[in-house]
Amino acid sequence: MTPPIIEGVFFIICYNFKMFNNFRKKINTKSVSGFPEFTPEKQRAFDDIKKIIDETFSNFGFVSIDTPVMERQEILLAKAGGETEQQIYTLKKGDEELALRFDLTVPLSRYVVDHYNDLTFPFRRKQIAKVYRGERPQKGRFREFYQADIDIIGDGELSISNDAEMVGVVNSVFNKLNFGKFIIRVSNRKILNGLLEELNITEKTKEVLRIIDKLDKIGKPKAQNELKLHGISDLEIQKIFELIEISGNNKEVLDSLEKLDIENDQFKLGFDEIKYVYENAILFNVKEENLKIDLKIARGLDYYTGTIYETNLIDFPKLGSVCSGGRYDDLSGKYTSKKLPGVGLSIGLTRLFSQLEETNLINFKKESQVKVLIVSMINDLSFAIKTANNLRENNIPTQIYFESKKIDKRLKYADNLNIPFVIIVGEDEIKSNKLTIKNLSTGKQEKIGIEKIVSYIKKC
Amino acid sequence: MTPPIIEGVFFIICYNFKMFNNFRKKINTKSVSGFPEFTPEKQRAFDDIKKIIDETFSNFGFVSIDTPVMERQEILLAKAGGETEQQIYTLKKGDEELALRFDLTVPLSRYVVDHYNDLTFPFRRKQIAKVYRGERPQKGRFREFYQADIDIIGDGELSISNDAEMVGVVNSVFNKLNFGKFIIRVSNRKILNGLLEELNITEKTKEVLRIIDKLDKIGKPKAQNELKLHGISDLEIQKIFELIEISGNNKEVLDSLEKLDIENDQFKLGFDEIKYVYENAILFNVKEENLKIDLKIARGLDYYTGTIYETNLIDFPKLGSVCSGGRYDDLSGKYTSKKLPGVGLSIGLTRLFSQLEETNLINFKKESQVKVLIVSMINDLSFAIKTANNLRENNIPTQIYFESKKIDKRLKYADNLNIPFVIIVGEDEIKSNKLTIKNLSTGKQEKIGIEKIVSYIKKC
Repeated sequence: MTPPIIEGVFFIICYNFKMFNNFRKKINTKSVSGFPEFTPEKQRAFDDIKKIIDETFSNFGFVSIDTPVMERQEILLAKAGGETEQQIYTLKKGDEELALRFDLTVPLSRYVVDHYNDLTFPFRRKQIAKVYRGERPQKGRFREFYQADIDIIGDGELSISNDAEMVGVVNSVFNKLNFGKFIIRVSNRKILNGLLEELNITEKTKEVLRIIDKLDKIGKPKAQNELKLHGISDLEIQKIFELIEISGNNKEVLDSLEKLDIENDQFKLGFDEIKYVYENAILFNVKEENLKIDLKIARGLDYYTGTIYETNLIDFPKLGSVCSGGRYDDLSGKYTSKKLPGVGLSIGLTRLFSQLEETNLINFKKESQVKVLIVSMINDLSFAIKTANNLRENNIPTQIYFESKKIDKRLKYADNLNIPFVIIVGEDEIKSNKLTIKNLSTGKQEKIGIEKIVSYIKKC
Repeated sequence: MTPPIIEGVFFIICYNFKMFNNFRKKINTKSVSGFPEFTPEKQRAFDDIKKIIDETFSNFGFVSIDTPVMERQEILLAKAGGETEQQIYTLKKGDEELALRFDLTVPLSRYVVDHYNDLTFPFRRKQIAKVYRGERPQKGRFREFYQADIDIIGDGELSISNDAEMVGVVNSVFNKLNFGKFIIRVSNRKILNGLLEELNITEKTKEVLRIIDKLDKIGKPKAQNELKLHGISDLEIQKIFELIEISGNNKEVLDSLEKLDIENDQFKLGFDEIKYVYENAILFNVKEENLKIDLKIARGLDYYTGTIYETNLIDFPKLGSVCSGGRYDDLSGKYTSKKLPGVGLSIGLTRLFSQLEETNLINFKKESQVKVLIVSMINDLSFAIKTANNLRENNIPTQIYFESKKIDKRLKYADNLNIPFVIIVGEDEIKSNKLTIKNLSTGKQEKIGIEKIVSYIKKC
């Protein structure tokens, strides 16, 4: 056994060495690239946007679910493909091989099967939550980001009217968010598919969709060239462009589509659907200028079978689509033999926020959620706490400043946090039963009877 | 090249084989053990509880942050120890070695250092979010669960009054949650530490704390035995028990503590602190019956240096502490040489919910958040949609039932989802400009002029 004195010295040396080491090399606390994290002011702005979206979803009858961040790897791999599969974060612990979700649609498709007997269909669910993609870090690319999703899932069948209402939801969301002019672009997969069927080139559907998807980026000549490289003839290319280049107002687009006179059942069904979706969407107070039938949109994902949506902010063309989705015939085909058709939308919330951050569309200088800072000039806090109790019971978020700092430091604290009112408690105030209240935005200071303080603040 | 006909046959065989396989062995969609996931009704009950906690935190001036689910492994490992370290979920992707957070305190300690210059101290933050621990799955143990945390972080110093207010927050939360009688137990680490210093056995502090922590479980004789095994003398054990067994009402406990007459500076400071915390906590409308100075609570974590809290629901003793926390001198010592003292609390939300689920304290039969289901008896939806627009503009969450089912199926749908009102739109209603509204809880059905529909529903 080591004698205590030596043990003690040894301890002191070790302890100081540890201290020295800690001082010399502190751990890197910078947040990891691709994992956004905000200051409280920005967080509040973000949460406000999230809340507007969430409340709008609720207003349209969507209810929340909250699936785990992790899924069995086989669940995710059954649905992921190509790039997405490479980006899955996997974990290993215990018996199950788990991975982090890369979207909210795959977890929904699993959830609906798992809870089938407890759900009432059509099932309208919302989920606003983080998803994970292990991309190489670069500006504007996130590895953890929020998606705000809604889906309506039918049991066996689902009315096309739901597709129309989805336009109404997007319209409500972007009207309320107030990020300037927006346009909801709608198409229907069956229209292009019908044409390709008519042209007898359905085996090239994937390539055609992929090329049309990037038409805006690469331009027409390049797109035509690529189509040619895939063995599509000049005449076929001409037919495809005749379709996707149809322009004009929505009624004109529908007229031109009809006049193409394509005798294909799928095409006709697609035409009927998009006409119905357009006519009914307008009923949800969607203005013509905010809705555009646009046959150029294709949506990369191959599970869409009918209506497809993209949404653009006119003043922010670089953002691309901020809200996309569509109709799918078979949500959970990999997990069940039940047919569960659905229509869904997803808003890329984190990306949207981060791009708008640099504009003046998001207000970071908002008044604090904390309405009142109480400052006590005396040691006995009973009067200050009683005042806080009263305000809090009336749902006025209140903070008491407890630190012993000079009054100007305390006022500065309220100012830094954008707290609108400071209530000052001192001997005079207690004797007179009147509180000094200072409005930091106007600079005005007055004395108010304690019984009137709640109504005074609520009025402001 | 394969002739098309053979290719076709080959395709059909492959396709059917795939279908057969899909049918034969569908992927396991059960949610993974330890990762709770609720039906929409339960989710709503959970979200309601979460909202009450969140709003109470806001009312006391706490603001939200939202740190990433992942941290650098070195950040977590610097703070984790023993069991917790074994439970960390690690990931590897790209250059950074990442892992999932096991609590919200470590991310906070990193956040405060990283954003130090953007924060205003004292910094009051709330975060209600999921954390991850790779425990062996067993009943009541979660691997993904919500914690609801608040902390107040000072820059260099932090007034003891904050410790008192924390009791006020817990008191408000559990009064509003209405889960029956609760008791907030408070102690102060300095008191026991002072005694151990006085007894000259500070090197055994960890063991003493650990044994006291489980006193309720193992009983006094076993605890005394264990202390003896650690080389603590009978007299020392007697002194320890003299302290921790002090009982009576709060004033009596303080009196008895004072009468122990221990001449140790740390002990005296601890006594002054707990007396101050008690006297000021009561000012936040905390009833004597809901607050108990209890010198038996020790809190396992070794970073606490002053006030410590535990909270118990009287009717659910098996739950243990549902809200715990305390004062720490040095939040971010591993990452910075700045001194950042704080006081914090954490509610184990998922565990609390899952235990109360089986009682009648949580109402799952609540009225739906969706207030109205609109059912159209005619194909033209314009009147139904107009009605929905009107209700939604007045923030009455409304769903239109679009599927073509019989009227009793539609009413059953509203009933299943606990939607309180069904509005029926048909030829008669459109002609008369009156809507048929059915109150599903009373069964009453009446005709209301469309201009009165909003006020009618808001009144109910």
